[in-house]
Amino acid sequence: MTLPGRFITFEGPEGAGKSTQIALLAERLRSAGEAVTMTREPGGTPGGEALRDVLLNPAATWSPLAEALLMNAARDAHMQTLILPALQRGETVLCDRFAASTLAYQGDGVAPETLAALEAAVVVRRPDLVLLLDLPVAEGLARAKARSTADRFEGRRLDYHEGVRARFLELAAKDPNMHCIDAAQPQDDVSAAILEVMRAHYPDWAALP
Amino acid sequence: MTLPGRFITFEGPEGAGKSTQIALLAERLRSAGEAVTMTREPGGTPGGEALRDVLLNPAATWSPLAEALLMNAARDAHMQTLILPALQRGETVLCDRFAASTLAYQGDGVAPETLAALEAAVVVRRPDLVLLLDLPVAEGLARAKARSTADRFEGRRLDYHEGVRARFLELAAKDPNMHCIDAAQPQDDVSAAILEVMRAHYPDWAALP
Repeated sequence: MTLPGRFITFEGPEGAGKSTQIALLAERLRSAGEAVTMTREPGGTPGGEALRDVLLNPAATWSPLAEALLMNAARDAHMQTLILPALQRGETVLCDRFAASTLAYQGDGVAPETLAALEAAVVVRRPDLVLLLDLPVAEGLARAKARSTADRFEGRRLDYHEGVRARFLELAAKDPNMHCIDAAQPQDDVSAAILEVMRAHYPDWAALP
Repeated sequence: MTLPGRFITFEGPEGAGKSTQIALLAERLRSAGEAVTMTREPGGTPGGEALRDVLLNPAATWSPLAEALLMNAARDAHMQTLILPALQRGETVLCDRFAASTLAYQGDGVAPETLAALEAAVVVRRPDLVLLLDLPVAEGLARAKARSTADRFEGRRLDYHEGVRARFLELAAKDPNMHCIDAAQPQDDVSAAILEVMRAHYPDWAALP
């Protein structure tokens, strides 16, 4: 699907600094005169935010398959009602989590062909650029714990999170548009690394301040 | 999956009398000493009921694909946490709507192969018997209107509901375990028709009063 806007997603564990880095990049792009839409998954639409509550509620007992179905339902609404219209208007869309998170988080309990069928049905426009903010599991969990009570995903065992990280890194190794950033660095260095990828990927952003 | 219980689902439009007939049948079976679980879709579990609210809210803007994903997520939870355990205990499960409703209601906007892939992933135990309470569209809508405000599905156009009815009838024509009952008859005659199907299908219920 050819649309004038740019679609950039941020992936990685809780505590990797995705929302901070998205805010910093949005600020930088807006200063340079770009129109930016910041959004997140699950969520981004009224229905998606309602599903986010349903999904992240620690009392719920969704199987990995049900999680993948719910994430994709929210993604469909997000794609159709927010992301595609923003790209059509020529905006840069910065999204906190997208399809790679489903592959990483639900990839332990759902058949790869089922996840692939869901992605093929829902993701009618793939991201141009995926930034994976990678972090050792223990550090991500410690950061996430320091700032909030655990949601359903954060509350899981260490080996689950190690599997999530491994699946993220595997995806990055296979996808030339997915770039791995060391998120254990100081925040300014992470920003600089992200900026470097952006400048390399989009020639007209080579001079981005 | 071999489980001792019996899994019977009721399909058809709003206003066909599904919940009334399920209650009458449950009463009859319990009088005969059977253990019965009555349930419904979407719903049947706390998470499923939360999704039911999300789905049926007239303000939501889910595409047919998102609807199918949400229905199947709720169905997975329903299957795993309520239906399979009840069948394992040897109970008769009477369910108000199941997989055929997704094919009938979302079948106009979602590719058949996507719906089939979802059903294959989620429905690990198919119903033994499906009772389609069929009714002319105008009559079903009039009955549904008389008793409540319209939800998202009831509020749709007449030709949408004609399509739903046609898809239900097509499914019944292809599936030897799906029986079409004329739900425009008086309630007692509908009950008698259902009972006749039950007696024919389950030899040990041939003498069911």
